[in-house]
Amino acid sequence: MDFKKLLEKRSEESWKRFIPTLSIDCVIFSFHENELQVLLLKLRDREEWGLPGGYVEKLENVDDAAIRILKDRTGTENIYLQQFYTFGNLNRSEFAFQDYDDNMWHKQRFISIGYYALAEHGQVKMDIDEFSSIVKWHSIENLPEFMMDHRAIFDKALITLREQLNNHPIGYNLLPEKFTMPELQKLYEGILGKKLNRGNFYRKILRYDILTKLDESRKGGAHKAPDLYSFDWEKYNSALKEGLQGNW
Amino acid sequence: MDFKKLLEKRSEESWKRFIPTLSIDCVIFSFHENELQVLLLKLRDREEWGLPGGYVEKLENVDDAAIRILKDRTGTENIYLQQFYTFGNLNRSEFAFQDYDDNMWHKQRFISIGYYALAEHGQVKMDIDEFSSIVKWHSIENLPEFMMDHRAIFDKALITLREQLNNHPIGYNLLPEKFTMPELQKLYEGILGKKLNRGNFYRKILRYDILTKLDESRKGGAHKAPDLYSFDWEKYNSALKEGLQGNW
Repeated sequence: MDFKKLLEKRSEESWKRFIPTLSIDCVIFSFHENELQVLLLKLRDREEWGLPGGYVEKLENVDDAAIRILKDRTGTENIYLQQFYTFGNLNRSEFAFQDYDDNMWHKQRFISIGYYALAEHGQVKMDIDEFSSIVKWHSIENLPEFMMDHRAIFDKALITLREQLNNHPIGYNLLPEKFTMPELQKLYEGILGKKLNRGNFYRKILRYDILTKLDESRKGGAHKAPDLYSFDWEKYNSALKEGLQGNW
Repeated sequence: MDFKKLLEKRSEESWKRFIPTLSIDCVIFSFHENELQVLLLKLRDREEWGLPGGYVEKLENVDDAAIRILKDRTGTENIYLQQFYTFGNLNRSEFAFQDYDDNMWHKQRFISIGYYALAEHGQVKMDIDEFSSIVKWHSIENLPEFMMDHRAIFDKALITLREQLNNHPIGYNLLPEKFTMPELQKLYEGILGKKLNRGNFYRKILRYDILTKLDESRKGGAHKAPDLYSFDWEKYNSALKEGLQGNW
């Protein structure tokens, strides 16, 4: 079906099913090939990239809507999802479908509730829904052009990760069960947006006593096989409650 | 005017003026008499206390709505205001006006965007609007019964203060320009919800080099007059950008 026809068809259904003026956008992060990545998609008639989003049903909790949207638009379930900010400026969405009828669902003023999701790379199914032409991981070091205000939504999500790194189980949800110290450092560097001194990082992270050193090492590299670690979930959790950077 | 009649009158106007389903609630904190306090009000026909709230105009930025609501409901302007979470569960508001007509504005499902505000005590004018019978500061150590889910909104605001203490200018906005070290410690204890060791706190806060010791002391007490400090705004700001608890 032609994209405009599809949106017109979905528009009628949307007015019946969803709460007007309210949308949800999801910033899905993953850590893969030693870099922090974000999942973006392209609408079928667009050149810019966007965040997977959707709407809240009239009789649905907002958190449940976010979970459903993630599943509907990317095929992904059971990942860590956290609301982080609501974007409510005028004209953030009103011109995105300018050449459509005024009563089109998509042409409304939308106030969008942002959620960030933390996924292991393999967990995200990369299903393409009827509105999208492509879905793809992008390194946060090399982001393409975004539609609407989606770049600002992404930026706010990353700043939130940065601020919550000491209070939320962000490392735990982005890394595989077993990881090396260089991988953990790379993840922190990606989130914090800066290089860290290796020695300081190791000392600091080990001092928190939240990691378990495993009796195995990573096979296959040319260099000496690096040690593998995993999070000690109980210790990690209670350290997060205090705030990872220590007590006042 | 009878309260029910007033709400019915305002209901008609509200449908014209505001975006349906969307509300804003404000958690106004202040530090006074050595304790953290929150501003609560009572609706004219209610026994429980509530947060000052309101709605977003059809052509108004959400942040501007929060500023306007603070002014309309408490007479307060020019204070630090920060969005912190959006509350979107079903049935959080639907039963608060159960005995009213179904087409009453106030009987809708509301999804509420929470803002916290940080005020010096004297800045808040305590004006009482047409919906309220009383507006009053409450110590967070001794909170009364709240209406609807306003207790959960308050709790989330306090947790957010706690998490943002190292990245946002919270002390700066809650304290008067000149303050003593015991006052600063009391403020941190209130936000963190625990007693702090005096020596550790002094050492730690001084190490950040964000305070200026003034050439004056607090007059009038029976004891030795305590030294006065103020924030060095430039140093404080750049320390917050790094995160107050040091660098990774």
